[in-house]
Amino acid sequence: MTRPGDDVAAVDTPALVIDLDAMERNLERMASFARSARVRLRPHAKMHKSAELARMQIAAGAVGVCVQKTSEAERLAEGGVDDLYISNEVVSPAKLARVAALAETLASRGGRLAIAVDGFPGIRGLAAAMAAMPGRSAELDVFVEIDVGQGRCGVPVDPEAAAATALAREVARSRGLRFAGLQAYHGKAQHVRTVEGRRAAITASAALARATREAVQRAGLPVPLVTGAGTGTFTFEAASGTYDELQAGSYLFMDRDYADNERDPSAPQFEHALFVKAQVMSVGARHTVVDAGHKSHAVDSGLPRVHDPSGRYALAFENAGDEHGVLRPADGGPLPALGETVWLVPGHCDPTVNLYDQYVAVRGGLVHGHVERLIRVDARGALT
Amino acid sequence: MTRPGDDVAAVDTPALVIDLDAMERNLERMASFARSARVRLRPHAKMHKSAELARMQIAAGAVGVCVQKTSEAERLAEGGVDDLYISNEVVSPAKLARVAALAETLASRGGRLAIAVDGFPGIRGLAAAMAAMPGRSAELDVFVEIDVGQGRCGVPVDPEAAAATALAREVARSRGLRFAGLQAYHGKAQHVRTVEGRRAAITASAALARATREAVQRAGLPVPLVTGAGTGTFTFEAASGTYDELQAGSYLFMDRDYADNERDPSAPQFEHALFVKAQVMSVGARHTVVDAGHKSHAVDSGLPRVHDPSGRYALAFENAGDEHGVLRPADGGPLPALGETVWLVPGHCDPTVNLYDQYVAVRGGLVHGHVERLIRVDARGALT
Repeated sequence: MTRPGDDVAAVDTPALVIDLDAMERNLERMASFARSARVRLRPHAKMHKSAELARMQIAAGAVGVCVQKTSEAERLAEGGVDDLYISNEVVSPAKLARVAALAETLASRGGRLAIAVDGFPGIRGLAAAMAAMPGRSAELDVFVEIDVGQGRCGVPVDPEAAAATALAREVARSRGLRFAGLQAYHGKAQHVRTVEGRRAAITASAALARATREAVQRAGLPVPLVTGAGTGTFTFEAASGTYDELQAGSYLFMDRDYADNERDPSAPQFEHALFVKAQVMSVGARHTVVDAGHKSHAVDSGLPRVHDPSGRYALAFENAGDEHGVLRPADGGPLPALGETVWLVPGHCDPTVNLYDQYVAVRGGLVHGHVERLIRVDARGALT
Repeated sequence: MTRPGDDVAAVDTPALVIDLDAMERNLERMASFARSARVRLRPHAKMHKSAELARMQIAAGAVGVCVQKTSEAERLAEGGVDDLYISNEVVSPAKLARVAALAETLASRGGRLAIAVDGFPGIRGLAAAMAAMPGRSAELDVFVEIDVGQGRCGVPVDPEAAAATALAREVARSRGLRFAGLQAYHGKAQHVRTVEGRRAAITASAALARATREAVQRAGLPVPLVTGAGTGTFTFEAASGTYDELQAGSYLFMDRDYADNERDPSAPQFEHALFVKAQVMSVGARHTVVDAGHKSHAVDSGLPRVHDPSGRYALAFENAGDEHGVLRPADGGPLPALGETVWLVPGHCDPTVNLYDQYVAVRGGLVHGHVERLIRVDARGALT
C-alpha cells in the first residue's frame, strides 16, 4: 500500500504516477496563456476525472471545468467543484432528472451547471426535468452544439444557421433554461500532426462558428459565449476572435499522442507529467517483460513510450496483452534487469486515467522523489 | 440506479450486461467438454474478475480458477474462491509477502494457492516469503513456465530442457514450495483465424511441452500437471495427450474477436453472452451517435460489433472517441432513432469488463428480459 512520504522507488507497480513539479508547471503555463490571450479557460475534466485537480485548475484561474457525462458531473460536484459544464448531449429521462437535481444543488452553493443540446427532444427533456424540480429556482445554462468539422454530435452549419437558430430560440423560451452560447469543438483537428494542418482546420471551424454566431444574433438572440478547443489547437481558437472559452484538458499531463504532434511555437511548452510505473518481471535473451499491459494503459491512440529518466536505455514498448508489455532495445543497447523500474508515457491519458482509482503524486522527480499525496480519480468509471 | 426486477429497457446506459441464459449455456457446454475429454478445467478469471462467476464455474466442475495478478487473487479469495492459480510471475518483495500470506489464508480454508515462475530470483523470493510466514504451515504450488511459442515469459525450451529442469529442481528443494508442473500457454495462437493454423501452432506447443515434461521426469522430478490453453485452441490441447488442464476463460462470454475465428467443429458452440447496452444520444442526416466509446469498451482487439436482437438494423460501429460511437447503416438501411437502445458485442471482453464495477445480469433475453441480479466485478482495477 503506497503512503505519503514513501520513496518513489517503493511505489508498487503498476501505478499511475503524477510528477507534481511538471504538472504544476503545465497548469501555470496554460493559465498564463489564457490570461494573456484574454480568453476564459474551462479545462476538460473528462481527462483527469479528479475533483482535487479541478479545484487546482480553478484556483489558478479557470472559470470551471467541462465533463462529458452526468455521473462525472455528480462526482466532481461531490468533490467540491461548483461550476460544471456537461459539454455533451443527454437524452434519457433518468439522466435528465439527475441533471436538473444537480443544477439545483450547484445553484444552492452559488455555482452553476451547463449542458449541450443538438435537438428539440433534448431541450424539451431538459425543460421538463427542470420544471419537475420542487424548487424551480435554478437555471440551467444550455449551449447549442454545432458541427464544426468533427462529424459527430451537433447540428450542421448552413449559411443562415437555421438549425442552430431554431434550437437557440427554443432554449431561450424554455423556463428554467438559459441560452448560454455555442459549443463548437473540432476533436479530429487535435491530432493532425502538422501545425499548418491544425491551423487550417481551426480556421475553417472558427469561420463556421462566427457565421453561426452572427446569424443567431441577427435573429435577435444574443450569443453570450462560443466555447471549444483542445490541447492540439487552442492557440488557434484563442487567436480567432470568435472563441471566448478554451476547453483543453490534456495539457495538464501531455500524453504520447499529443507530444507526437509537430509543436506549435505559439503554444506553451508542456511536459510529460503522467506516467505508469512498471517493473521488469521476466527477462529473456533479447527482451524483457514488464508488468503493465493494456489493463494498465489505454492503447486506443497507440502504445506508450518508454521514458528513461536515467538516460541509460533506449527501449521500444511492444503490446503483449492485458497484463504484460515486452521491451526491446531500440538501438541494440542494454535492457533493464529483473526488478528494475520502467516508466511509461501513456499513448492517451484520458482512458488510461479511467483505469485507476488513484494517482500517486510524486514531488522531487521520478528518480529521487517521494510520494507527496494520493489524489482520487473521483469519476473513475463514471459512464452514465 | 439499476435494481433487480427492472425491465432490461430501464437499465441506464452505458451498462455491462450479461445474458444469463446464454452464459449458463456456455458454462455448461465447456464443463461438459472438459468432462468428456477427461481434462481438468481451470478457467481464467482475469477475464470476468468476479468471485460469483468463479464460484459458478467451480460448482459446474472447474477445479479452481486462474488469475494473472496478486491483487486479483486476493479479491477473489475475499469473495469465497479457495483454489487459485496466479499463472504469472511475481518478483517484487512486497507482492511476494502478499502471495505467501494468501497461501496461508487459503490453506487454512482447505484451499490452495499456486503461482508460476520462470527464473531463480522468483523462486528464491517465494521461498523467502513463505519462510517469513509465522505459521510456516502452508505449501505453495509452483509451476515452471516454459515458452511454447508466445515469446513473452517462460524459459526457452531446448531438447534437454536444461532451464526448466534446473528451475523445477530448485522449486522441489525449496521448503514451503511444491513443484506442481509446467505452465505452457501459447497466447498468440488463440486468434490465428483458421482452424488449421491454430491446430498447427498447438501441435508445436504440445510437442515442446511433452519433450520438456519427459526431460524433467528423466531428471528424476515427477511433473504432476501440464496446464495451458485458451478459448481459441483448447480442443487441441485437450486432444494432445500432454495437457492435463485447460485455462480457457473467454468461452463464458465470447467476444467479437473470438467469434471472428473460423469455428473449430470439435469445439462447443459458444454464444455471445456479454454486451454493452448503449443509447442513441444524437442523430445526424446519415449517422447516429451512441453514448458508448472506448471508456465503455476496450478497443485493443478492434471495435465492437453491433448486435440487433430485433433484426431490423445492420449497423457498423465507428470509433468516435472516449465517450461516443458513430453508427452507420452497413447496407444503406435504416438507422435507430434518438433514445433507442443499441447492443454492442465488445471486441475483447477482458479489458472491457475491467472498465465496470458491476455486471447487470439479465434473464429472459435482451428484448423482453429483466434484471435478475447485479454481479460485482470484484477484481476491477486489480493491477498489482
